[in-house]
Amino acid sequence: MAKTCNVALIGQGFMGRTHSNAYLNVAKFFTDLPMVPVMHTSYGLESENPKIFAERWGWKNAASDWKAVIRNEDIQFVDIVTPNDMHMPPAIEAMQAGKPVATEKPIAGTLADARAMAEMAKKSGVKTFVWYNYRRVPAVALAHQLVKAGKLGRIFHIRCQYLQEWGGPATPLLWRFQKKYAGSGAHGDLNAHIVDMARFVTGDEIVEVSGAIAETFIKERVIPTQGSTGGITAGAKGSAQMGKVDVDDAVIFLTRFKSGAIGSFEASRLATGYLNRNGFEIHGEKGALRFNFEDMNYLDYWDATADRKVQGWNRIMATSGENHPYVKYWWPDAHILGYEHGFVNEAADIMRVLAGEQPEVPLPDFQDAYETQRVLEAALLAAENRAAVKMSEVK
Amino acid sequence: MAKTCNVALIGQGFMGRTHSNAYLNVAKFFTDLPMVPVMHTSYGLESENPKIFAERWGWKNAASDWKAVIRNEDIQFVDIVTPNDMHMPPAIEAMQAGKPVATEKPIAGTLADARAMAEMAKKSGVKTFVWYNYRRVPAVALAHQLVKAGKLGRIFHIRCQYLQEWGGPATPLLWRFQKKYAGSGAHGDLNAHIVDMARFVTGDEIVEVSGAIAETFIKERVIPTQGSTGGITAGAKGSAQMGKVDVDDAVIFLTRFKSGAIGSFEASRLATGYLNRNGFEIHGEKGALRFNFEDMNYLDYWDATADRKVQGWNRIMATSGENHPYVKYWWPDAHILGYEHGFVNEAADIMRVLAGEQPEVPLPDFQDAYETQRVLEAALLAAENRAAVKMSEVK
Amino acid sequence: MAKTCNVALIGQGFMGRTHSNAYLNVAKFFTDLPMVPVMHTSYGLESENPKIFAERWGWKNAASDWKAVIRNEDIQFVDIVTPNDMHMPPAIEAMQAGKPVATEKPIAGTLADARAMAEMAKKSGVKTFVWYNYRRVPAVALAHQLVKAGKLGRIFHIRCQYLQEWGGPATPLLWRFQKKYAGSGAHGDLNAHIVDMARFVTGDEIVEVSGAIAETFIKERVIPTQGSTGGITAGAKGSAQMGKVDVDDAVIFLTRFKSGAIGSFEASRLATGYLNRNGFEIHGEKGALRFNFEDMNYLDYWDATADRKVQGWNRIMATSGENHPYVKYWWPDAHILGYEHGFVNEAADIMRVLAGEQPEVPLPDFQDAYETQRVLEAALLAAENRAAVKMSEVK
Amino acid sequence: MAKTCNVALIGQGFMGRTHSNAYLNVAKFFTDLPMVPVMHTSYGLESENPKIFAERWGWKNAASDWKAVIRNEDIQFVDIVTPNDMHMPPAIEAMQAGKPVATEKPIAGTLADARAMAEMAKKSGVKTFVWYNYRRVPAVALAHQLVKAGKLGRIFHIRCQYLQEWGGPATPLLWRFQKKYAGSGAHGDLNAHIVDMARFVTGDEIVEVSGAIAETFIKERVIPTQGSTGGITAGAKGSAQMGKVDVDDAVIFLTRFKSGAIGSFEASRLATGYLNRNGFEIHGEKGALRFNFEDMNYLDYWDATADRKVQGWNRIMATSGENHPYVKYWWPDAHILGYEHGFVNEAADIMRVLAGEQPEVPLPDFQDAYETQRVLEAALLAAENRAAVKMSEVK
Repeated sequence: MAKTCNVALIGQGFMGRTHSNAYLNVAKFFTDLPMVPVMHTSYGLESENPKIFAERWGWKNAASDWKAVIRNEDIQFVDIVTPNDMHMPPAIEAMQAGKPVATEKPIAGTLADARAMAEMAKKSGVKTFVWYNYRRVPAVALAHQLVKAGKLGRIFHIRCQYLQEWGGPATPLLWRFQKKYAGSGAHGDLNAHIVDMARFVTGDEIVEVSGAIAETFIKERVIPTQGSTGGITAGAKGSAQMGKVDVDDAVIFLTRFKSGAIGSFEASRLATGYLNRNGFEIHGEKGALRFNFEDMNYLDYWDATADRKVQGWNRIMATSGENHPYVKYWWPDAHILGYEHGFVNEAADIMRVLAGEQPEVPLPDFQDAYETQRVLEAALLAAENRAAVKMSEVK
Repeated sequence: MAKTCNVALIGQGFMGRTHSNAYLNVAKFFTDLPMVPVMHTSYGLESENPKIFAERWGWKNAASDWKAVIRNEDIQFVDIVTPNDMHMPPAIEAMQAGKPVATEKPIAGTLADARAMAEMAKKSGVKTFVWYNYRRVPAVALAHQLVKAGKLGRIFHIRCQYLQEWGGPATPLLWRFQKKYAGSGAHGDLNAHIVDMARFVTGDEIVEVSGAIAETFIKERVIPTQGSTGGITAGAKGSAQMGKVDVDDAVIFLTRFKSGAIGSFEASRLATGYLNRNGFEIHGEKGALRFNFEDMNYLDYWDATADRKVQGWNRIMATSGENHPYVKYWWPDAHILGYEHGFVNEAADIMRVLAGEQPEVPLPDFQDAYETQRVLEAALLAAENRAAVKMSEVK
Repeated sequence: MAKTCNVALIGQGFMGRTHSNAYLNVAKFFTDLPMVPVMHTSYGLESENPKIFAERWGWKNAASDWKAVIRNEDIQFVDIVTPNDMHMPPAIEAMQAGKPVATEKPIAGTLADARAMAEMAKKSGVKTFVWYNYRRVPAVALAHQLVKAGKLGRIFHIRCQYLQEWGGPATPLLWRFQKKYAGSGAHGDLNAHIVDMARFVTGDEIVEVSGAIAETFIKERVIPTQGSTGGITAGAKGSAQMGKVDVDDAVIFLTRFKSGAIGSFEASRLATGYLNRNGFEIHGEKGALRFNFEDMNYLDYWDATADRKVQGWNRIMATSGENHPYVKYWWPDAHILGYEHGFVNEAADIMRVLAGEQPEVPLPDFQDAYETQRVLEAALLAAENRAAVKMSEVK
Repeated sequence: MAKTCNVALIGQGFMGRTHSNAYLNVAKFFTDLPMVPVMHTSYGLESENPKIFAERWGWKNAASDWKAVIRNEDIQFVDIVTPNDMHMPPAIEAMQAGKPVATEKPIAGTLADARAMAEMAKKSGVKTFVWYNYRRVPAVALAHQLVKAGKLGRIFHIRCQYLQEWGGPATPLLWRFQKKYAGSGAHGDLNAHIVDMARFVTGDEIVEVSGAIAETFIKERVIPTQGSTGGITAGAKGSAQMGKVDVDDAVIFLTRFKSGAIGSFEASRLATGYLNRNGFEIHGEKGALRFNFEDMNYLDYWDATADRKVQGWNRIMATSGENHPYVKYWWPDAHILGYEHGFVNEAADIMRVLAGEQPEVPLPDFQDAYETQRVLEAALLAAENRAAVKMSEVK
C-alpha cells in the first residue's frame, strides 16, 4: 500500500493548472508509486477566488494565507507556482519548517534570491525540486540516457533554441513585458528551459559565455484597457495608450563547455513561424541527437558508427513502453503523448524521491537550478559588456 | 450550474481506461459544459475484479451484473466498452430502458448485430453514439470543417491507410488473431476507423467496393502459455504449440464514392516501420488535405487557389485555441495534445448532445456507424468474390 | 582507350533532350567507361526542323528519314524517343539490321507491339534496352541493392504511387488526353514507371491484379486553338470548343505477387498537391524502405532488427560516393543530384553493356519491359471487368 | 544570333570541373542568351597535366602560363578557380588588361588581397564577379524575390548555418586544415557562403559582430603519406606521423544588422549528421523563410498575414517554370534540380551581364564580395578579442 503525501499548492495560474492536473492523474497511471499525492490545500490571493480553483481541480481545502498553509502540520510537501519574484519567501518558509519544497522554473526572480534558496537548501538538508518539466518528456529523457550510455562520444556542438512568435507588435503590454513582474523577457522564460535541458542531456557545464545579444525589438506596446496581465496569446484590445517594454524580446548567446564543446542558445518571442520550438541539436564524435518540442514524441538520432551505406537521421518515435522512459505508464505504443504528460511524469518522480527512491532520470534541485540561473546572468552580463564573461566571475 | 449525468461504464479493458480518463477530466477542462458526467458505476466480470478498477479511476460503484446496472434508475447514460461481440446485448437493453447509449467502435461484432442496433435506435428514439474518437482529434475536426467550408471543391481522390507493425511472426496468438473474439483482424480494428474518418471528413458516401484483397500473412502463431489475450504489444513468451490464425493481417480495398471521387483503404498489422499510421490524403479541385496520427497535431493543407509562386503543402499545427476545434479548452497554443484528448473531447460533445446542445463537429450515432459496417462487409465480400460489390447489394 | 559507339537518336521531343544531354555529358563524368557514345545522327520530322535540334545538342548529323538512318552502316546503336505508337517500326528495323536498340518507356503503344518487339529481340539476339530512368536514381538503385542483400527479409507490402496534379479542368485537350496519340492516360505514363520500379526493387513478379479502378474525372476539355500538343504544363489558352477525353485521369489497382506479398499501384494527374510524387513503400519482416521522387536524394530505411530503443525511419541521403550507386562519378558527397542524372547514369550503363560489361544495377530489356506492359494490360482488364485478372490470362 | 565570348579558365580543381560543366551546358538550356561562352583556353600547372583536363571538358586550348593566357588578345573573359591565395594575381592582371574577370568564392585569401581587388575593380571599371553559386539555386533566388517584394516586412531574426561532418578525427591533414593553403578553415570555406546568402536574401548589411567563438576541436591530424591534398572526403590512409592543424574546425558568431535585425552564423566541419546543411531561417513581422541545401529544391515560407486557421509552414517546391527563377530553362515542373544547376544558372547570368543585360537576380562583384570578407574578418577579430567588433573598425 503506497504511502500518501499531503501537498500544498502555492499559486494558481497556468502552472497551477498543470500541477493540479499532474497530482490528479499521477496515481491513475503510475500504479506502482511508493507514495501518492493527496491534494490537500491550494492557495491563491483572495482576489483570485481560491475556492473556485480548489473545487475545479479537486483540492480539499482552499486558502489565502500562504504562511499558515506552509506551517499547517498536515502539509508534507510545498509546491510553489507563484510569479517568479514570489518564489523565495514561501520556499524559505518551507525549508525553515523542514518541509520538502518545489518551485516552478526558473527557481527565482533574481540571482540573489536563487542563491539564498540554494544556500538554505544546503543548510536545511530538505529535499528541493524545480519543475523543469521538459526533462520528463520521454524523447528528452531518452536523449539523456543515450548520451549517458556513450552513444555520442566526445561532444563538439550543443545548439539550443526556444523560439516563439506571439510577441509581435500587436501584442499588448502584458506582465511578461514588464521587468517588475517578469524579471526578464524571453531570456528567463525560454532560455532558462534550454540551458537546463542542455545541462541535463549532456551532463556538461558551461564555463564561459563568449558573446551575447539581448534585444527588445518592440520598444513600446499598447497598455491593455483592463488590468489584464493575461495569457500567452492575449488578444486584449488595446487602448491608444502606449507603455514602455523593459524586458528583452530575444537573447542569443554563445558558450564554451567544460568538456571543450561549444554551444549557442537563442530565445525569442518574435520568431515568426515557430509556435513553441523548444529544441536542441547535439553533435558528437560517435553520433548526434536532435529534438524539437513541436514534434515532442520524436527524437532524431544519427549513429556515426553505423554502416555508412544506411547511415542517416533516425527518427525515433519515443513512445515504446518497453524501451522509452515513462511510456509504459501511459497508453499502448505509438499512442502519442502531449504537453501535460511531462508534468505528470514529474509528479511521479517527485513522489518517488520523497519516498526515498530514485527518479527515472535526474530531477533538478535548488542547487542545480541556481547553476542555470548563473548562466542566464552571465549571458545578460555578456550582452551588456559586449564581451565574454567567465562563469567563475558570476556569483 | 451544469446539470449532471450518472454514467454507467460497461466493460473495463483498454477502452475502459480511456473512457474513465475522459469522464474524470472532462469537466476540469471544459468548464462551460451544460451537463457534467458523474462516474456512477463501472461494470466488469467478477474475474476482472471490478472493485480495483472502480477505485483506481474513481467510479463510485463497482458491479458485475450489467443488466442490473442498466436497469438501475439512477443510471442516465450507458457506455459500453466490452469486446465487440458483447456490444449488442447491453445496447439493446439500454435502448429498451429508454436510456441514451454509447459503444466503442466498431458498433458491433457482426453486421446483423449492427443492423439490429441501428433499427432499435430508430424505433426507440434514444440518443446513441459510437466512439470513433479520431473525429475529435483537433486536426481531423479541422479537416472536416475545411471540407465543409468548400476549401477542396470537387473531390477526386480519398486515400486512407491505418498501418501498424506489431503483428510480426513473433507475436503470439492473442485474442485479436482469433475470429471468435475479434470478428476480424486489421479490417474491423483499423479499417473501421478510416472508413469512418473518410465519411466524416468528406461528408461523402461509398457506393461501391471495386476490388479488395484480404490476406493473412502469418497463418499460425504460438499459443501463449497462459490464457493471456493481452495488450497490443504483448510479449508473452510462447510455448512450442502453434495455433491457427483465422482473421486477416491486412485488407486493402478500392472504392467509388457518390460524388464521383475514387478511394482506397488499407489496414495492416505488418507494415513494418509504421507504428500507428492512421491517416488520409484527400485531393480536390481547389485544394488537398493530409493527416497522419503519428503527427496528430498537424494537418497539411494545399491551397490550389493560392499564388503558385508560394504554393506548397502548408503544415498547420492545429493547436490554436482561437482557431482550431477543442483547443481552447486545453493549454496555450502549440502545447501539443495527445491520444487521450480525443476521448475527453468526445465526452464533452456527448454531454452537450445529452443536454440538447450541438457538438463541436458531428458525432456518429448507431445508424451512422452501421453504414461504416456495411462498407467493411462489402470489402470482405469483394475480397472473397474477387469482384466489385455495389453497396446496394449489402444489407 | 575507350571504344566508341555511333549513336542514332530517333525522335527529338522532351525525351530527345534528356537523352541528348545524357550522351553529351556521360563521358565527362564517367571517365572509366569501356565505350563512349559518339553523337552521330539525330532524326526528326521535316516539320520539326531536325537541324536546329542537332546543332543545339551537338549531334553531328540531322536526318528526316529514319529508315535510312538505321540502315546507315556507321550507326552502331539506335535509340528511339518517338511517341509510343511509333516505337515498334524503328525498333524492328534496327533489330533486323542486327543493331542494338533502346526505346523510351513504355516499350510500345500497344501490348501487341510490345510482344512483337520482345519476340524479335529473342529471335535476333541483339541487345535491347528500355529507358526506365528511375532505376538509376541512386536512392532507388540503393533500394534494389538493400533488398537483394536481404535487408527486408520476407516482403509483405509493396505500395506504389505516381501522383501528379497538372490535369485539372483548366488544362486543355493535349495529346496526352487522346487515346490515338497516347494509348492511355496516367496509366501508361505513370503506372508504367512504378510497376517497373516495384519489379526492379523487389525482384518479385505480379501474379494477379485483384481489382482496379480506371477513372476519367474530366470528361471534356477545351481544344487548344493551335495544333499544340504541348508540354506537361501547357498553358495554351483554350477556345470555346470542347473535345472528348478518351484516356484515364487516374488508375488504381491491387496486386498479388509471386512471393505472397500484396501491393497497390496508383497513378493520377489530379492528385492536387503532388507535383511529381513517384514513390514506393515496401514493408518486410526485417525492415522497410520508402522513396519519393520529390525528395529524390533520400531513401528512408527502417531496420526492424535494430535495438528498438533507437529504432526509427532512417533518412539516408544517398549521395555518398563511396557507398551509394553512381555517386562517385558526380560531385563530392551530399552535393545533391537532379532529374537528368538518372539518364546520364543510364547512358553509362548502356555503354558498359554494349562493351560487354555489367551495368551497376540491372537494365530492363524488351522482354522485361513487355512484362511490365502485361501488368498494365491486366489492370485495365480488371477495371473493365470489375473483377480480378490472373496474369496467366494476359498475353 | 547570340554574340560569343572567349573564356579562359584559370585553374582546374573541383571548381574547374563545375565551371567547365557550366560553360559546356549553359547554351543548351538557356537558348535565349544574348551572348554564349566559347571554351577557349583552360590553364593548369604543368604538373596537373592541363591537356587531359582541357580535352575531357572540351576546352579548345590547354595552357600552363596564366599570364600569357590572360594577355592573349582572343580571351574576352577570365574566370579564376585557383586556390584562394592565388586569386589576386590573375585577377589584377586581367583588370589591368581591361578584361572582365570572375573568381570563385571567397574573393581572396586575405582581406588585404580582397581590398586590393575591390579597389582595382573600381579603378579599372571592368565588370567583376564572384561565384557565390548558392544565390542561383532557384529556392534561394525565390527567397530574395519574396523579401524584396515585402513578404517578410520588418525582419527580426536572421539565422544561418553551414554545417558539415567530414572533419572527424580520422580525417587526415588535408590542405583544407592548413592555414598556408586555405587561409582559414570552416570559416572561409562555409561561413563565407552564408554571409553572402544572408546579405543577398535580405539586402541588409551587418554593422557589428557582437560575439564569436572560433574552435579547433582536432588539434593534430595524421599527415597523408603522399602529398595528396585531396578532396572533401579524402580517405587517404595516414602514416603514423601527426601534423598540427592551424585553422578552425568551427566558427560561430552573432551579429547586428543595419535594419535592427539580429543574426547568428555558424560553420562547422564536425557537425555529425549534417552532410551539407547550408541554410537560413529569417523571421519577419509579416512572414518567415527557411532554406536548407540538403533539400535544395524546397523553400519554406510562413505567411503571417494569412488566415490563422490555415497558417503553417508552406513547403514550396521551387521548380515551377512559370513561377520560380531559372526553372523554365530546365525540365518540366517538379523534375528536381541539383547542385551544378546553380553554376549553370550563374554562367547564364554572367553572359547576360557581359552582354549588357540584367541578371535574373543580382550577381556579387568584387566590392560586394569584399564586404563579405570584412564580416568574416570581424568575426575572427571578435573571437580573438573575446569582445564585440563594429564593422566600421574593420578595413
